Amino acid sequence: MKKNIINCKKIAKNIYNEIKTEIKELKIKPTIVAILVWNNESSKTYIKQKEKWAKYTNIKFILKHFKEKISEKELLKEIIKLNNDKNVNGYIVQLPLPKHINDKNIIKNISQLKDIDGFHPINQWHTVIWSNPIFTPCTPKWIMEIFKEKKINLKWKIITVIGRSNIVWKPLINLLINKWATIIACNCDTNQEYMKKRTKESDIVIVATWVTNLLKADMINKKTIVIDVWITKKEDWKLYWDADFENIVKKWNLITPVPWWVWQLTVAMLIKNVLKAYKMQNTK
Amino acid sequence: MKKNIINCKKIAKNIYNEIKTEIKELKIKPTIVAILVWNNESSKTYIKQKEKWAKYTNIKFILKHFKEKISEKELLKEIIKLNNDKNVNGYIVQLPLPKHINDKNIIKNISQLKDIDGFHPINQWHTVIWSNPIFTPCTPKWIMEIFKEKKINLKWKIITVIGRSNIVWKPLINLLINKWATIIACNCDTNQEYMKKRTKESDIVIVATWVTNLLKADMINKKTIVIDVWITKKEDWKLYWDADFENIVKKWNLITPVPWWVWQLTVAMLIKNVLKAYKMQNTK
Repeated sequence: MKKNIINCKKIAKNIYNEIKTEIKELKIKPTIVAILVWNNESSKTYIKQKEKWAKYTNIKFILKHFKEKISEKELLKEIIKLNNDKNVNGYIVQLPLPKHINDKNIIKNISQLKDIDGFHPINQWHTVIWSNPIFTPCTPKWIMEIFKEKKINLKWKIITVIGRSNIVWKPLINLLINKWATIIACNCDTNQEYMKKRTKESDIVIVATWVTNLLKADMINKKTIVIDVWITKKEDWKLYWDADFENIVKKWNLITPVPWWVWQLTVAMLIKNVLKAYKMQNTK
Repeated sequence: MKKNIINCKKIAKNIYNEIKTEIKELKIKPTIVAILVWNNESSKTYIKQKEKWAKYTNIKFILKHFKEKISEKELLKEIIKLNNDKNVNGYIVQLPLPKHINDKNIIKNISQLKDIDGFHPINQWHTVIWSNPIFTPCTPKWIMEIFKEKKINLKWKIITVIGRSNIVWKPLINLLINKWATIIACNCDTNQEYMKKRTKESDIVIVATWVTNLLKADMINKKTIVIDVWITKKEDWKLYWDADFENIVKKWNLITPVPWWVWQLTVAMLIKNVLKAYKMQNTK
């Protein structure tokens, strides 16, 4: 792997091994449940990865697969069951859900202490408003983890973030702001010329849109760190990456690698949250 | 008043009169309670303004003044009482609270439906993450109201926001982002030269720091709209305004006026939330 590619594989592997060791030393067996309702390829792939790394770290993984036509009321019943089940330390509801189910209503009812995805309002509140997160959503969490790993002090840094999603982007900019960074928050509608000027002078550029090759090599400088958050679009389930990796990588700068290893980092953060949930539930 | 000064007085007065008319037509008497614990000059001034405009619009205003040494537990009891009191439509806990009381704990326990300040986690979640606010905090709310009043379409606008507070600033940038604006989020630590370049090219600059005259006339262009959110600092209770009003106003641009009328707008937003709360509680 080229020197300027951030070795996400190594970072993720280290995290998995640390957690594996800690679980072994503590002689515990945390348990998580994954709820899968909408059985599309993308969701199945995510779930498989979560299962793989849960097993690797000695976490019991239970998949609850419901039919797509399950009602919101029935799903809520399952959520309450999981909230009350002392043998379950954390659980995820794989998003997106079918259209007849109000995802906000589901998320609101997840026990705050078992919310390893960090989507519950109180957890988001702690993350976004108070900069005192209990469970941080996994994608912003791995981005912050990379900065920690690379010993990048965010204070005084100019960071351009391109995107507008609720799960990745909004918690992320607030986490960056809490580190006293200066943020340029662009979206797909931002004037392209203006955006180019800003990315060109940025220390860090983070892209999470659905526009392929939005960030071109001539839009950054040689020292810019590029974080590309590959995402799938709900409508077509295709994988999008937003940075022109091939051309950017020729320059002298850091960039996250093409999939799948950034997604491994997302899963690593989830596994980290599981251990945290277990500890929170088992200490007084 | 000069043409380029935003007439906050007029905007606030219009809102008060609209609410007064609606309350009269609906033949209702909404009731709010203000909890005052820390009896400093600034809090007293705020409370007096809230009382004045509640009375003006025919809203019953009850002040509950507790001793500074009240325990968190006792205060929580009062909160629960207000949550259950069917005669109370909304209430505010005047911040800041004395240091021995955990304000987060108090805010979390305010009934979501009576939270006219918009500080409750679920309300913040709706505002910040889902851009579907039930109660928006009053300062970001009046800033958005000014844009609506002045018919300023925020899409494609370049907006520099200088500040970092939880109550004003974070909900605000998220509200602006939801309108597809491009945001430059600076704080007091942002490199001054860099900040000047950004403010100079901005369509709108919003300042809410504690640095007097941070935004000077040579930092903006002739068309920049300046929103100065005058704030008090917890430590010294002094009033800070961040824009060099005298010199900026000589240029050809819009600016919010020196106090008190922007604060009147804050109170107007609170009164608006009271009517909303009443309606929510009285419709099925």
